[in-house]
Amino acid sequence: MKKTRNAFLKRTHTCGELRKEHIGETVVLNGWVDTRRDLGGVIFIDLRDRYGISQIVFAPQHHEEIYRRAQTLRAEYVIAVKGVVEHRPEGTYNPNIPTGEVDVIVQELEILNKAETPPFHIQDRVDVNEDHRLRYRYIDLRRPVMRNNLLMRHKMAQAARRYFNEHNFIEIETPVLMKSTPEGARDFLVPSRINKGKFYALPQSPQTYKQILMVSGFDRYFQIVKCFRDEDLRADRQPEFTQIDVEMSFVEEENIFAMSEGLMVRLLKEVLDVEVAAPFDQLTFKEAMERYGSDKPDRRFGLEIVTLSDIVKNVSFKVFSDTVNNGGAVAGFVAPGCASYTRNQLDNLVDLTKSLGARGLVYVKVTENGFETPVQKFLSQDDLSAITEAVGAVAGDLILIVADTWKKCYEVLGDLRLEFGKRLDRMQSNKIDLLWVTEFPLFEWNEEDKRYYAMHHPFTSPREEDIEKLKDSVEGVKARAYDLVMNGNEIAGGSIRIHTPELQSLVFEKLGIGRKEADEKFGFLLNAFKYGAPPHGGIAFGFDRMVMLFAGMKSIRDVIAFPKTSSGLSLMDGSPSEVSDEQLKELHLKIRS
Amino acid sequence: MKKTRNAFLKRTHTCGELRKEHIGETVVLNGWVDTRRDLGGVIFIDLRDRYGISQIVFAPQHHEEIYRRAQTLRAEYVIAVKGVVEHRPEGTYNPNIPTGEVDVIVQELEILNKAETPPFHIQDRVDVNEDHRLRYRYIDLRRPVMRNNLLMRHKMAQAARRYFNEHNFIEIETPVLMKSTPEGARDFLVPSRINKGKFYALPQSPQTYKQILMVSGFDRYFQIVKCFRDEDLRADRQPEFTQIDVEMSFVEEENIFAMSEGLMVRLLKEVLDVEVAAPFDQLTFKEAMERYGSDKPDRRFGLEIVTLSDIVKNVSFKVFSDTVNNGGAVAGFVAPGCASYTRNQLDNLVDLTKSLGARGLVYVKVTENGFETPVQKFLSQDDLSAITEAVGAVAGDLILIVADTWKKCYEVLGDLRLEFGKRLDRMQSNKIDLLWVTEFPLFEWNEEDKRYYAMHHPFTSPREEDIEKLKDSVEGVKARAYDLVMNGNEIAGGSIRIHTPELQSLVFEKLGIGRKEADEKFGFLLNAFKYGAPPHGGIAFGFDRMVMLFAGMKSIRDVIAFPKTSSGLSLMDGSPSEVSDEQLKELHLKIRS
Repeated sequence: MKKTRNAFLKRTHTCGELRKEHIGETVVLNGWVDTRRDLGGVIFIDLRDRYGISQIVFAPQHHEEIYRRAQTLRAEYVIAVKGVVEHRPEGTYNPNIPTGEVDVIVQELEILNKAETPPFHIQDRVDVNEDHRLRYRYIDLRRPVMRNNLLMRHKMAQAARRYFNEHNFIEIETPVLMKSTPEGARDFLVPSRINKGKFYALPQSPQTYKQILMVSGFDRYFQIVKCFRDEDLRADRQPEFTQIDVEMSFVEEENIFAMSEGLMVRLLKEVLDVEVAAPFDQLTFKEAMERYGSDKPDRRFGLEIVTLSDIVKNVSFKVFSDTVNNGGAVAGFVAPGCASYTRNQLDNLVDLTKSLGARGLVYVKVTENGFETPVQKFLSQDDLSAITEAVGAVAGDLILIVADTWKKCYEVLGDLRLEFGKRLDRMQSNKIDLLWVTEFPLFEWNEEDKRYYAMHHPFTSPREEDIEKLKDSVEGVKARAYDLVMNGNEIAGGSIRIHTPELQSLVFEKLGIGRKEADEKFGFLLNAFKYGAPPHGGIAFGFDRMVMLFAGMKSIRDVIAFPKTSSGLSLMDGSPSEVSDEQLKELHLKIRS
Repeated sequence: MKKTRNAFLKRTHTCGELRKEHIGETVVLNGWVDTRRDLGGVIFIDLRDRYGISQIVFAPQHHEEIYRRAQTLRAEYVIAVKGVVEHRPEGTYNPNIPTGEVDVIVQELEILNKAETPPFHIQDRVDVNEDHRLRYRYIDLRRPVMRNNLLMRHKMAQAARRYFNEHNFIEIETPVLMKSTPEGARDFLVPSRINKGKFYALPQSPQTYKQILMVSGFDRYFQIVKCFRDEDLRADRQPEFTQIDVEMSFVEEENIFAMSEGLMVRLLKEVLDVEVAAPFDQLTFKEAMERYGSDKPDRRFGLEIVTLSDIVKNVSFKVFSDTVNNGGAVAGFVAPGCASYTRNQLDNLVDLTKSLGARGLVYVKVTENGFETPVQKFLSQDDLSAITEAVGAVAGDLILIVADTWKKCYEVLGDLRLEFGKRLDRMQSNKIDLLWVTEFPLFEWNEEDKRYYAMHHPFTSPREEDIEKLKDSVEGVKARAYDLVMNGNEIAGGSIRIHTPELQSLVFEKLGIGRKEADEKFGFLLNAFKYGAPPHGGIAFGFDRMVMLFAGMKSIRDVIAFPKTSSGLSLMDGSPSEVSDEQLKELHLKIRS
């Protein structure tokens, strides 16, 4: 019953495969015309596929008719050629490609498909804007850099899977059509046709399902999974993104840390051949903020922040002392060698600081001849000396000081620190720094709608020792939450979860989620907790960002095959798009006018 | 900076791990109380986790206080115990479990969580309806059968990934939020908040994207991916389902077949330890229909259909001869040993045949004394003998004959054949039969809206030799499409695709998709084809159904962690659900009244 079809010459080798050993063999290659050089009597073509480039040669003395047809070949034509592998003439080797010692003298040529001139060149550096690349993504993905990004992404996903398999994790698929539980970001909704007026939501994360799986006894779960957030997109966010989602039972923080560290060590070794040492450092949220002005500190350069509150709490400069006495903070860091900044540069720095939301910036130039600062008359020489000593400045340095609420003070200094890291060219991009940030506050006050939100999510457990305190007040209650930070990027976040209905109800209550609302939204989880929920916790890795950092890219769009723009558009296929009125009718929907 | 937390006794071993070698060791186990036997002075508990069961023992002579606390333990409590592994007394071994030679004498007990009495027993056979199981899915998933199903699913997915990796495939994630291109089934829509009045659609398959990836040069793509269809759900359909999606460049049918066969051989060997031989048989669509009355034939039992049209085209029985002369078909098969059927049984059979849509059923009892049939007076003994010989009936058999249009005739006989396979207990469920069905018609006429639809999808290539014919008429044009059938179930389907814009436009035209509509819906693909598209083809495996067949389940819901009912409901969490008016306003939507 078997039939053999032979509609075209099918490849015997890929374009990256031929070596000296193949000399004398007759081979078939399939691929794209990458470049074509017509040297009078001979045509050389670089034939390209995913695996590499092979040089193929058309010469009239070999095959007159084929040579003539080869003259019609243009860039990006898809062809099949049959020919003999030959040693390239001495002196014409191409040492830059693995196939550079041989070429193929073509005996048969089939044009499998023609191509119009592509809208831009198939090469790493292209001088076109990103929208143009996204519109012609099928061309863009032919560029070696993009191909390598997707290959690396694949390699990382498979390596991660192998790792979790080896450690007895099960990958379990959780639903994409789930329940809308608006808490945190906005859900994407999917109208139900069969159930009029009702909607599914796309998962912001499989959080509740993975906890349910722990209750079911699948004590080690992972999933590489798409998640969705309908947010106003910032430069480097996507409405759909990929997460390596992990949950474990019978664990505490250290177990999650060790498992995650193992993953990172493995990925860095397998994909980048870089060795990192585990365990990773741990900083509390407070330490991270006070030393780096960020809950995702980039520690690859110095410029550490120093708290000056104690030193300045009694100075006559009210801006400092009042700030401290009203519960705020004063802190600063040294910009080495920046005492040479001009008045104009310093003014710009003050403006920058204000635009970051602080009330102002105090700077002190440390020179051989003493201090230069606009607040000279408010601070004594002793005060200035004490500050200089505390921050560790020497002659030639510039000290930058901010006085504000605790949060604002360190956040702004953190931003300034990053700015100076760049200005002073201190970001060591070849270094890899991994650390945990721990002990986040459980709740975060939102000024806008005057309520507390869960800083991580409402299923995060408070620390054991804070549970009693929580009954009275949420202030100062710390969460068993943690982030994994790589080179100043949060690449994973997780927590030890609540596993009793009592504590979960208490946390809901403190979040202002009433019993009825809690039941409606999360009743199934509260119910599940009644039937024997084990202690559990987990973590989720932002896979797109991880691949971006591994690949050394600046945008996650460069490691996603078909990303959307910051307005949520897919420029290649034009989605989202209008749909027919019939489709809307079936869904019982109308567009509001 | 490292801190050690010790909120509870953490396991040193799983409940499936302890053996004779561990005797004398002090261990910690974490798990669920499976059963508890109180034998006067001693309490035996089977402690359960994902990995197995360990017997733990509480005796007052060992630890009085712990023994008393053990009396409070109930089914499904989550506990941690520390104790010493001991050899069970001679004669009390449990040979049914790997840990059956040892038990653990408990020295410390921690109750990690209590449990209410579960709504049904945690055991394979439960006498509750499926809705109840789905509502309490977290309990249901604790049952060994369900746990093993999800473990098998995991194993199959990982084995499939390993297979494709070994063969140089790249897994590339395609978008979940894509363009609505209603063609075939109905799309699930996702309203865009940022782009008023516009909608994304969830993918029915990543078809267009995987073809784009071929144009981009990723010549071997796979993805294990969620797909979505908003159909009126039949018993065994889910609105979201999982596909192993595959696409290859520079290939023809045989390459896809070989790669797919390799996957099946691998999965059957690794997961079920079953050897199957490749290549698999190939039947054309016509052969499959005429011999088995189905495009997904179950060949594990005989009862093959025999076409009788030639034999009966001149008989005086008009029902037969007119059918043949009007282009219909007459065919039948033998029900061995069924000549003993009573009048009542036969009447029921006729009714069944009519309910399947045929005009009627002709039956012939073959007995030692000749033929018994209601159409005796229209058919000569010679006619009846010729029919009997053709179908291969012997005395004691019943011949079942249908005369109808070609399609109806074979479809109805196919259904009757399956019915008799069951009645005669001929379905050999331990046998595995895999085959390809090929040469499907390219188009299918739809009586309802009087137009042609693509039988596979509109990107399927016609056979080379039919392309000229297609310009005139779609009748008789065969597709380069194929299905993989396992034990009467279609488990995969695919095709060689069109790869030139000219042929794609022609097929769109024949489907009644005008130039403007084609541009709107698929313009990006037609455009991509202009820049050098390679010959390519692919296949998609229905992963849920595959796992179901491997696991020997009757419903795909038993191999999906959180399935939906046939009304698209998730009974556990109550989705889909109503959403707030505020959410709808943000999406610019109103419910139609």
